[in-house]
This record gives sequence, structure tokens and C-alpha cells, in this order.
Amino acid sequence: MVRILVAGGLGFIGSHLVERLLRRDDLDECLVVDNLWTGCPQNLDHVLDPRLRVLIADVEQASFDGRFDEIYHLASPASPPWYMAEPLRTISANVIGAMRLLEVLAPGGQFAFTSTSEVYGEPQVSPQPESYRGSVDCTGPRASYDESKRCVEAMLFEARRVLGVRVKVVRLFNVFGPRTRVDDGRAVSNFISQGLRGAPLTIFGDGAQTRSWGYIDDIAEALERYFWRDGVDFAGPLNIGNDREISVLEVARYVQGFFPGTPIVHLAPAPQDPSNRRPDLTTARRVLPGWRCAVPYEEGVVRTIAWFRAEMGLEDAAPARAMPAALSAGAANAHRFATSRGVGI
Amino acid sequence: MVRILVAGGLGFIGSHLVERLLRRDDLDECLVVDNLWTGCPQNLDHVLDPRLRVLIADVEQASFDGRFDEIYHLASPASPPWYMAEPLRTISANVIGAMRLLEVLAPGGQFAFTSTSEVYGEPQVSPQPESYRGSVDCTGPRASYDESKRCVEAMLFEARRVLGVRVKVVRLFNVFGPRTRVDDGRAVSNFISQGLRGAPLTIFGDGAQTRSWGYIDDIAEALERYFWRDGVDFAGPLNIGNDREISVLEVARYVQGFFPGTPIVHLAPAPQDPSNRRPDLTTARRVLPGWRCAVPYEEGVVRTIAWFRAEMGLEDAAPARAMPAALSAGAANAHRFATSRGVGI
Repeated sequence: MVRILVAGGLGFIGSHLVERLLRRDDLDECLVVDNLWTGCPQNLDHVLDPRLRVLIADVEQASFDGRFDEIYHLASPASPPWYMAEPLRTISANVIGAMRLLEVLAPGGQFAFTSTSEVYGEPQVSPQPESYRGSVDCTGPRASYDESKRCVEAMLFEARRVLGVRVKVVRLFNVFGPRTRVDDGRAVSNFISQGLRGAPLTIFGDGAQTRSWGYIDDIAEALERYFWRDGVDFAGPLNIGNDREISVLEVARYVQGFFPGTPIVHLAPAPQDPSNRRPDLTTARRVLPGWRCAVPYEEGVVRTIAWFRAEMGLEDAAPARAMPAALSAGAANAHRFATSRGVGI
Repeated sequence: MVRILVAGGLGFIGSHLVERLLRRDDLDECLVVDNLWTGCPQNLDHVLDPRLRVLIADVEQASFDGRFDEIYHLASPASPPWYMAEPLRTISANVIGAMRLLEVLAPGGQFAFTSTSEVYGEPQVSPQPESYRGSVDCTGPRASYDESKRCVEAMLFEARRVLGVRVKVVRLFNVFGPRTRVDDGRAVSNFISQGLRGAPLTIFGDGAQTRSWGYIDDIAEALERYFWRDGVDFAGPLNIGNDREISVLEVARYVQGFFPGTPIVHLAPAPQDPSNRRPDLTTARRVLPGWRCAVPYEEGVVRTIAWFRAEMGLEDAAPARAMPAALSAGAANAHRFATSRGVGI
């Protein structure tokens, strides 16, 4: 039986990954460690599986009982306003977090890491293949995220080279969908939450900058297949994302269509905002044959609007998330949570 | 009065820096922390200044008493065979080391870091200005060094941005001279120690790869001027090095001239060995007017051969370094050394 540790498992992508891990029959225990920086207990509040345990702690300082056969390191903010506000904490979560997690990996275990397309910085080639070395300003205002992801990649590939650690590294391009924080700060979620509040949709700069928006279900499917389901023997790095490139202005206009009368306004450009971003998926197609982003961007936006509408309490039929229960003493499954540095019961 | 901490102060460059720091009248205490990974106690064994204290410890775990007005972070191996053998330790020394050192910087203090030209990776432009973002394979066999240096740069410039920390970052190009380890593993020292042992001079690859060799006295002079003497108000990054580019084969042939009959042999290329490396010194000339590499490469090699000859015990007049005294109980100045995690008396 398998013991699994997911750092950042209460986050947007982490919680989707945990749900899929819990479908496995060989799973004995899934321990989530999350410090609630950008993660939300509600993301897994609906999960009643007794194999799930949640430890509220910084991954760098957490105490773990024993070792884990599989470790998934997603403990990092991913949105610029969040990591730019606390850059040292971002570096710590990624780099010191990875160092700490390596210590509790069982011999022969697998260490999976969600790196980022931001390792390519301001790309000089498009689409970006994994072999592209990137153009990151390591002294710039986005460097805490970009460089700490690069540093963890370095750490893991070196751990593989000198220690034989089995690693799997994905570089995720933009992901959107349910469980994005309402205050996440990236384009799709910004526009949707603004539209739902009746506020103007704000674009940083002229909106000509492009992104490749992958819907969460498609991205999580790729992660599941690559990390465990397909038995892939490939360390990566592996680009995962949607290779349909869309400008931020186009996103705003599409979202605007759902909120007639809502204006689009332009603000000053974000510092060092990459002008373009599009994955070369050649490797992904080889490693994960048949996988593709099946949910069209337009459909993904519709689903995300519906989720945000409920999340923001704008529907009569308010969902469970409108009543955050986890961490409160009376919550039905509060037994899962521990706030000490030891593993909770 | 000023309290100064030098991490890696027993190393090649660190020890030269410490000697220059001890010339300052405003210095109250200079604490060196070094774990002797590549540093050597003998490098400062001749220093009798009572303001110098040496703590033998890993910088990441060291306990310090109080805070420091100036911190110099040089705690990292710099030669590929050393960092490639222990890549995780290299990342830890640089990144976790920097994180730990930031914690003990006094309010308003200055944090200086010796980064590296390796942040440029395999440069696609020559010479390399500080604005060049580099071409580093963050999954490659040199990544532990390159990426951890990049990550510390990111940490420091972010600490400056969000916390106002006064930082100074230099990117050092190749440095050579006395106190390079005999087993350092880089070209100049390799060739000299091989020549002195009567062994063939070994070149990795065809030797067409170029480097820019700065003699230690010139480099240390630049560090002294930039870090404290000139009162410079510039965070960097600042390229420091010799912009005279020389091929490794040319170095081998020049050294060969001192050891007639010694052959040059070619070995397999080192993995991802950069093909070229030359600093653009425009910023350095502006920030440090009049500074230049005054010791010609040829003269530097002569001086280094003389030092290596003594170091290897090949002269009658053996120098102090042939009798390592530090760390031995009876050493004249063993009082300086502490091996506990506390600061020694």
C-alpha cells in the first residue's frame, strides 16, 4: 500500500489532484500539508474519504511521521500579485520546501513537482519547447517565482543524477477553472469576478499579451496520467497546457459578453508581464498519447462563471463552499485537520 | 563600530576578502563561518588580528549571537567537479544559506553576495552585459550552481524591493591565483598542479572554449572598492572580471612553457562546458572608475606557479601553509576557532 504526501493539496490545482489520487485503490494514506496561504480548506471539504489527512503547516517546517512513497510538491502561490507580495516566502516554500520533502521521500519513491511555464520568462521562441532555456530576469520583480521554480527543477534533476531519485517535473501553463480563488488576480478569474460584481474588467497594459488557458479538468487529467495512471517512465520536464494562444484582450471581450454593459478599462502594464506564452506539446503528445485539452476555452469560461457565481453567493442555491466548515470545531470532518506541526489525527 | 560576517571566509576568494576587511579601522568584529568543504583554515592562519573569529559550521545551521551590519555570502563551492559531486549541498549552501544570513542582518545593514558569470550559462552574446538574461539549462548537470546563484540573486533583489534591504551583488568571472586549492579542478590550477607533478596537462575537449581569467588581487581590489571602500550606492548585479578572453588551449600551452617536456592531452569534454565567457565591464568602469585588471594573465600565472610550488612542498623554503596549524589544539591562534554551532571564543 502506498503513502502519499501532497504539499499544497488545498490549493486550486492541488485539490483537484488529491481528488484523483483518492480514486486509487492502492492508496493507504494521502496526507495533505498546506499552510492556507493561497489554499482553502473548503476545496476538499466535500471529501469524506478516511484515507485523507490534512496538516495545516508550512511545508518547510512541518513534522512528518515516517516517509512517503509518492510526494507531490505544489506548495507555492502561482499568481503574480500573491508571490510578488511575499517573494521570500515564495522562494522558501518552493526551494526549502522541496529540500524538506526530499528528506521524507521513501527509498525508491517518486517525487513529482509542478513547475511552470514561467521558467521561460519572456520567451524569445514560440511555441516554447522544453529544451528552450528561457529568458528570465533573475533580478526582476517576478524572479521569486520564476527562479525558485527553476531552482527546484535543478535540485530534482540533480537528485536524480547523483542519488537516483525518481522525479517527475511538469511545466504548467496557465490553468483556470473552479477553485481558482476569487481574489486570485490572474486574467480569467479577475474578469469573471469583476463581471459578477458589476465592476469594470481591468486589463493590465493593452491586452495584446497572450496566454494559453488550460481548463483544470484537462490539466488534472494530464497530471493523473503522467504522474501515476499511465506508468510513464519519463522524468520530464514536460509541458502541460493548452496550445491555443489567446490574447488577454480577447479573454476580456469574451467574458464581457456575459455581463452586458460592463466596460473594459486598461491599467498600467504589470511589471515584466510576459508578452506571449504557448506550450510546444510535442513531448506531451508522445508521453501521453491521445491527451489533449478537450474543454474549449469558451466552455471552460462558462463553467467557471457558474462556479464563481455560486462561490460568491450570487445564487439562491448556495453551495457548500458558501458555508466554510473546515477548521471550525463543529465541522463534520474536522477530524482530518491538524494545526500542530505533528501529523493530526 | 561594525560587526561583519563572512560566510565562506576560509575559501579562496573569501580569505582574500577577509584580509582586506581587517584593514578597516571601523571594524569591531569579523566573524568567518566556514564548513571547510572547499575552504582551508590555513588560508587565514597567518592572520593574528584579534577581531577575527572563525566558526566552523554549515552556514545554514549556524547559530549566531546577534546581528551583523555587513554580511558577505561566499559560502559555495565554485569549481564544477566540487559542486557537481554534491549538488544538493551546493543549493543548500547558497539558497538556504542566504535565507539564514538574511535573518541575522542588522536593520539597515548591507548584504553582499558573490554571484557568478555562470548565471549566463552558455552565452549567446559576447561579451555578456549584466542585462543579458542568460542561457542556463535548469535541468542540466551544472544547474545546482547556476540556478542556486540565480535564485539567491532573485531573493536579494526581492528583499531589496519589498523590505528595502541594502544588497550588493557581483557576478564574478573566472578568478585564479594563490589559495586556489591544488585539487580545485579548474583549468589554470589544474595545469599548474599537473605541471608541478610532472603529469600531462589535461584539457577537457578541444580547448577552444574561452574564459576570462582575473587575477585574485585585481578581483579582490574590485570587491573591496565596491563593497565598502568607495561608498558605492549601487545594488548590482555588477560584472567583475578580466575582459581579456583566452582559450583553455592557450592557457595550457602557456603553462606548458614552464614545464618543458610535459605533454598536453585531451579528454572528453566536460558536460555543458560553456563555449565562451567574457564580461562586459561597462558598468564596472562606471561604478569603479579607474579599476582594471592590472596583473597581466602571464604574470598572474607566474605568481600562481610560485605559490603552488610552495603549497605542494616543492621548495626548500616551505611556507607556513606547509605546516597547517589551525584547528590543531596546539596552534598559536587556535583560540579563534570554534567547531560548535555557537560562536567560539
